[in-house]
Amino acid sequence: MSVNVTRGRPRDPDLERRVHDAVLEVYWETGWAGFTLDAVARRARVGRAALYSRWSGKAALLVEALEVRSPLPVPVDTGSARGDLVELARQLLDGYTGAAGLVTLRAAMEARVHPDLLAGLTETLNSSRLLAAREIVRRGVGRGELPEGTPTTLLLELVTGAVLSHVLFAPSGPRDPAYADVVVDAALRAVAQ
Amino acid sequence: MSVNVTRGRPRDPDLERRVHDAVLEVYWETGWAGFTLDAVARRARVGRAALYSRWSGKAALLVEALEVRSPLPVPVDTGSARGDLVELARQLLDGYTGAAGLVTLRAAMEARVHPDLLAGLTETLNSSRLLAAREIVRRGVGRGELPEGTPTTLLLELVTGAVLSHVLFAPSGPRDPAYADVVVDAALRAVAQ
Repeated sequence: MSVNVTRGRPRDPDLERRVHDAVLEVYWETGWAGFTLDAVARRARVGRAALYSRWSGKAALLVEALEVRSPLPVPVDTGSARGDLVELARQLLDGYTGAAGLVTLRAAMEARVHPDLLAGLTETLNSSRLLAAREIVRRGVGRGELPEGTPTTLLLELVTGAVLSHVLFAPSGPRDPAYADVVVDAALRAVAQ
Repeated sequence: MSVNVTRGRPRDPDLERRVHDAVLEVYWETGWAGFTLDAVARRARVGRAALYSRWSGKAALLVEALEVRSPLPVPVDTGSARGDLVELARQLLDGYTGAAGLVTLRAAMEARVHPDLLAGLTETLNSSRLLAAREIVRRGVGRGELPEGTPTTLLLELVTGAVLSHVLFAPSGPRDPAYADVVVDAALRAVAQ
């Protein structure tokens, strides 16, 4: 689901790293309204020409930085559906606790207010996670751990949502390391038939 | 859990309405960093003196506006735990879809980045919802609909979270009016013993 936004220049990992850092910082501070390629260039200490020659626009740049840095699940295959889902929940829990996760949430919110500007962003971010969940469920059904017709979207919304709600609204303080297990067991009971 | 932030002046509902409108608009546009009483006074077309004489500071003003406008649940008592939870889920779904809901999410996120500035905000917002859920569960247990020891926080995180995830990440378009029922039935299976 990756969006190809870099132009024909050779890759420069150090430049990309600095630019992605700057994108997340500037976007977090200013939101979509104040987010410009010029501001990113200044923050990254990159010449405007270098930035404009590699990235086609601010939407493409933001989507790329979020894809690279955001708490999208790393594919997991622990051997069981429950294990895979717990690992997915842990990744989401860690991801949303960090800066990139907060930026992702902000972008998902702003996409509701500026649908024309951030068109495709939400779908891009969500579809990676949905593909990961579909793969987990597909293997689980194949192994006979999950019933045919397990509602993947609902399962994913329960797991992602409980993690989000926990990160955003639960009182601060040390988090229970078993929370991912608790949520996944609850979600599996929820979708059992 | 309401925070008493207005000073000793007589209430002026029209002034309060205009100020709350302005608070949500300015905060949405600028975030915590740019949010000032002066900006609110200008936007609300209220004299600075009137604003400063009634509200003690920007944190107090933001918390008050969010309490008054945010998608906190209106107490419900439909006669059944399932009915109450579906109504709660509907309120959250409507609330998070609107401007005040997005502002609430933004505040919950920024409280993670500026814990000193927004101390208490997250807990204030969450505790109203948690109290509502506790009351629903308490009555449900009393009527024998829910088992003793039903985990209220987990139930609430599943319902709130699935709604949030649905609002933030599901593709746009007309929402399924039965989504609240689907989520509540799933959450009730999840916490069944």
